[in-house]
This record gives sequence, structure tokens and C-alpha cells, in this order.
Amino acid sequence: MIILGIDPGSRKTGYGLISKQGNRLVHIDNGAIFTDKAKDFPQRLEKIFSGLSAIIAEYQPEVVAVEDVFLAKNAMSALKLGQARGAAIVAAVNVGLPVHEYTAMQVKKAVVGTGRAEKAQVQQMIKALLNLPEIAQEDASDALAVAICHAHSAGIGALLKSIR
Amino acid sequence: MIILGIDPGSRKTGYGLISKQGNRLVHIDNGAIFTDKAKDFPQRLEKIFSGLSAIIAEYQPEVVAVEDVFLAKNAMSALKLGQARGAAIVAAVNVGLPVHEYTAMQVKKAVVGTGRAEKAQVQQMIKALLNLPEIAQEDASDALAVAICHAHSAGIGALLKSIR
Repeated sequence: MIILGIDPGSRKTGYGLISKQGNRLVHIDNGAIFTDKAKDFPQRLEKIFSGLSAIIAEYQPEVVAVEDVFLAKNAMSALKLGQARGAAIVAAVNVGLPVHEYTAMQVKKAVVGTGRAEKAQVQQMIKALLNLPEIAQEDASDALAVAICHAHSAGIGALLKSIR
Repeated sequence: MIILGIDPGSRKTGYGLISKQGNRLVHIDNGAIFTDKAKDFPQRLEKIFSGLSAIIAEYQPEVVAVEDVFLAKNAMSALKLGQARGAAIVAAVNVGLPVHEYTAMQVKKAVVGTGRAEKAQVQQMIKALLNLPEIAQEDASDALAVAICHAHSAGIGALLKSIR
């Protein structure tokens, strides 16, 4: 199962692709889509949507995981983040992919084992878990983290089903 | 020129289509896309995106106008509104349509003549300007208002070009 994790943002949208092979997680790709601050906002949303649509078309993930955001500095930044998030999620649902949302705490717990982990710890764990040659860039690392979180949840879901 | 005005919202997204024929504005259609609160948020965004995509395919507008939002009750509502807005804007930019944003003040000024107009005044003016048989439903009326605002701005833009 190929999982696409997304960390949406109006300036940078991180993405990370992993493959779950039994209990093994294999890294496929990660990176970020950058939007040009000089462009108007609808054009920036278009870049996020078309960039993710291209990645989905290339790697054909079966499921998408996105970090659920509860906190934002203020209403203005929440509005910007929301729009980027809307554009990202629509890229997935537009081609019929299920989208799962996980809180930051769930993601940290899945990756490090505690919901209170520091960002640096998460990045180190991502590198270790996926055998990356180096620490992934921040947004890409966050995207890989939420993909891993989904892989674990999906695993637990399957386990629960099997013992019922 | 057919203009599609959109008033995005996570529960209701209003739309309004007008045609600008010289200095005359003709009403084409208006309505709202309702999303099911019981559905998860990605599914609701999909409904907004696919609903507007269908309307765009049917009426083939040449331009889209959306009200720019500055104020939101809080970060959480801003985030929800932002996501709905992102899904709506992507429906337009996905098929290459230009999207113009206008502040609430610009919209009210274009429709009523003053940026401090009450909501009821705006709705009455929309009905009068477009010869509607009755006052349009609130979100649809707001969508028609931003479409009219764009029609006026586009008219001024063309005028400025012609006298240069």
C-alpha cells in the first residue's frame, strides 16, 4: 500500500510517499511544492493543487494522510493555511482517494512514541525509520511523519478486524 | 461576458451567474451548494469542488469573482472557511479561469454605492439590479453581489484602457 502524506502550507507544501509492505515501511519519495509569494493567492493554490495532482498521478497512492490543524497564530494565518489545505485535499478527493486526518499529537506518538516529542526528535526518527541518507527537509519530514502515522493506524485497524 | 460569483462556506457555498452585455447586467442563475455536516471534512470539500466544477462546465463563465475575507470569528472558523475557499478557488483555476478577489467594502460600494450598506440593502439592490422575481437566498445573493462588483470593475478597467 502506497501512502501519500501531505503537510500543506501557503508557501511550502511538503509531501512524502511511503510504501507499507507487511510491517515494513519503505521510503519512496519526499519533497516540497513551493509557491511564489509574488503570485496572487489563487495562482498559488493552483500550484499546490496541480503539483499534488501530478505527484498522485505519478505514484498512484491508495490513500492520503494529512495533519489536522487545530492551532493557528491568528485568524488571518488560519485562513491562508485553510486555503492551502483545501487545495491539497481537493487534489486527493478529486481522483477518489480517501483522506485521513491525524492530530499533531497522534503523529508524534506514532513516530516517536510520545505526543510531546520535539520537532528534531521527529525528524531523527523519520530518518531512522525510513533509512533516509539524511534528515529530510522540514515540511517533507512532517509529511512523511503523517504518512507513517496512517500506516500504523491502518495496521492497527487491520489487526482489530482480524481478531474480531 | 459571463461572470461567476462565489461566496464560499464550509456548510453553504453560494454561487451567482450574471452576463454583462455592454452596460447591462443580466441574471443567469443563482443557488447554493450545501454540504452534509455529518460527512467528514474532505468529503465536504469534494462536494464544493465538484459542485462548482459542474456549474462552470454548464455555464462556461469567463471569469470568477470571490469575496476576500479579512475577518473571521476565530482561528478555527477561519481554517474551515479557508478550506472551503481553497476548494472553491481551485475549481476555477483548475480549468484556467482567472479569479478576482474583492473586499466586502468594495462589493457593497459597487452594489449599493456605500461600503457601509446593511445586508438587507444589498439583497434589495441585487433584486432590483437584476430584475429578480424575489430576493435571492443569502449566500446566493452575496455571490451575485461579488459578480456585479467584478462587472463594474471590469467596466472601469476597460474604460481606463480606452482613454489611455
